[in-house]
Amino acid sequence: MSVQPKSCDAMVPSGPLDGASDDILGRLIAYLAHDLEQVDCLIRTALESEVGLTNEVGRYLQGSSGKRLRPILTLLASRLGDERAEGAVHAAALVELIHVASLLHDDVIDRAALRRGSPTVNAKWGNEVAILMADYIYSRAFSTAFEWLPSQLMAVLSRVAGRMCDGEMFQIEKRDQLLTEQDYLYIIQCKTAGLFSACTRIGSALARVSEPMIAALERYGLHVGCAFQITDDLLDLTADPGRLGKEIGTDIASGKQTLPLIRALEKADPEDRAFLLAALNDGRPPEMVVERIVKYGGMEYALNVARRYASEARECLEGLTGGPALQFLRELAILVVNRAY
Amino acid sequence: MSVQPKSCDAMVPSGPLDGASDDILGRLIAYLAHDLEQVDCLIRTALESEVGLTNEVGRYLQGSSGKRLRPILTLLASRLGDERAEGAVHAAALVELIHVASLLHDDVIDRAALRRGSPTVNAKWGNEVAILMADYIYSRAFSTAFEWLPSQLMAVLSRVAGRMCDGEMFQIEKRDQLLTEQDYLYIIQCKTAGLFSACTRIGSALARVSEPMIAALERYGLHVGCAFQITDDLLDLTADPGRLGKEIGTDIASGKQTLPLIRALEKADPEDRAFLLAALNDGRPPEMVVERIVKYGGMEYALNVARRYASEARECLEGLTGGPALQFLRELAILVVNRAY
Repeated sequence: MSVQPKSCDAMVPSGPLDGASDDILGRLIAYLAHDLEQVDCLIRTALESEVGLTNEVGRYLQGSSGKRLRPILTLLASRLGDERAEGAVHAAALVELIHVASLLHDDVIDRAALRRGSPTVNAKWGNEVAILMADYIYSRAFSTAFEWLPSQLMAVLSRVAGRMCDGEMFQIEKRDQLLTEQDYLYIIQCKTAGLFSACTRIGSALARVSEPMIAALERYGLHVGCAFQITDDLLDLTADPGRLGKEIGTDIASGKQTLPLIRALEKADPEDRAFLLAALNDGRPPEMVVERIVKYGGMEYALNVARRYASEARECLEGLTGGPALQFLRELAILVVNRAY
Repeated sequence: MSVQPKSCDAMVPSGPLDGASDDILGRLIAYLAHDLEQVDCLIRTALESEVGLTNEVGRYLQGSSGKRLRPILTLLASRLGDERAEGAVHAAALVELIHVASLLHDDVIDRAALRRGSPTVNAKWGNEVAILMADYIYSRAFSTAFEWLPSQLMAVLSRVAGRMCDGEMFQIEKRDQLLTEQDYLYIIQCKTAGLFSACTRIGSALARVSEPMIAALERYGLHVGCAFQITDDLLDLTADPGRLGKEIGTDIASGKQTLPLIRALEKADPEDRAFLLAALNDGRPPEMVVERIVKYGGMEYALNVARRYASEARECLEGLTGGPALQFLRELAILVVNRAY
């Protein structure tokens, strides 16, 4: 079920050149500026309601929006064809709304207090409001998109939303067991990479490119998604807390088994292994956890796996033609592993 | 926004003739038997997953299924045309799955421990599993239905799902205030009657009857839904606990303001009013709550409002032709207010 990166020599350039990353992102946002404005407008409309509390939470969510990576992927893929793809901004808004809704439920499940440096909806209004707001967003996102998107693409997104639940359920089912690397890859593909691959599949399908090209873009999205999530999990241990918007080490402290830890647990001597297991169950000082994971090469290993996924994502694009959008997709595969937050 | 029953003389026949109710239901189920079997089969398939825990919860939900009233309404409406309506069983499965998913989230929000005499999913597996299972069901329901239903009908259902959240959010927003009768009617239309009206609208649209007839069926569904929910709220105070599957008075004990209470609060003297307000906040013996609501005519008042809705539902069908399905819809409008559980 899960794809795994082949070992490969052609690695993506390494090193977190943060200035360069910001530069790519800046050019990307300029390239897509008009579409991204429309996406924001659609998201704003989807979050409106005749009920005051829903509106209030909706405005709060708009004020703490993220990197818009999923809309960006969708829009880039939608520009690979000869003509302007109809419905692309609606698809881009829909994938972002699905993402936002899934984060709301994730934060309830993880009992998370902070996201992007601000209190989560569950922390601010309680679990029930967070649960309902996510349901509201799903419904609104789908009901608006029906007018604009072919039903087979809507079905792709519904299936992906189901897979996201599968991934989370699998994680709950395995909560009291140690995850293998394969379990971890299955979870990130369900929870993150599936939606990324739906973005590039839907965008390219709207651009009416050939079926093999749509399939290549879908694979690209899956690999970029894996590279992104592994990096995200790494950043939870290595990032600057100010830029991350929360303390480091919260994943492991809340019992989440990420790839650097899984690798370190495999390699650690009994004493360090016991320490790391304790970190998962009742927490340990993050710097001591990081120290032990570094000792057993957990960070380096995870970074290499992320780089291999990114490299394979770029390989998926080989032989394709598509102007600046294609070039941006290539750069994005590097950016997702070379970012600092 | 909310419809309210006109005062009317042509009331539906009164009195809970339970044997007669069972008889109508028996004939109805025989009439729709083949379709209902297919609906059950579709629901079973939608609840399957490659993840063990999801499957386990799915099987549990099938084992405690309810009255299937929403599929029945959808199927009856789908039989009003000249030919067999394509996609009717898929629509019927979809509305039931939306209903089941909404109950899962409702039970988390209400911290409910029992439903239909069995432990709720949140009580048995925890809130996170209940939240995710509902998300899973929504996604699976929609992704399967896309193949079978026109997108404008799917959009109707997405909008209704959004309205269900609106109703619940409005209820949370007003939690610390007393509800007016109008607030109550708004909530039940969002949370219950909207889905009923979508059932009859979608069923009749699939039957390809005329637009005015679809509109009449949609209004019928809205009124039947209101009658049903008011009766449901009444039964929480008056039913036999064995048949209800839970103790009586749990709505009010959990702070839910239903019509009999709203009416009694309007009419009560200061002492009884204080008692009823206390019942909402920290609970009181249910029989003492019931006694006071009866004293101020709250039950009778709510029953009359339910009967008026049922009567108006029947009026919506006047002048229509449609064979046995239409006759069943007429009888169903009586059944929803004359049931004992």
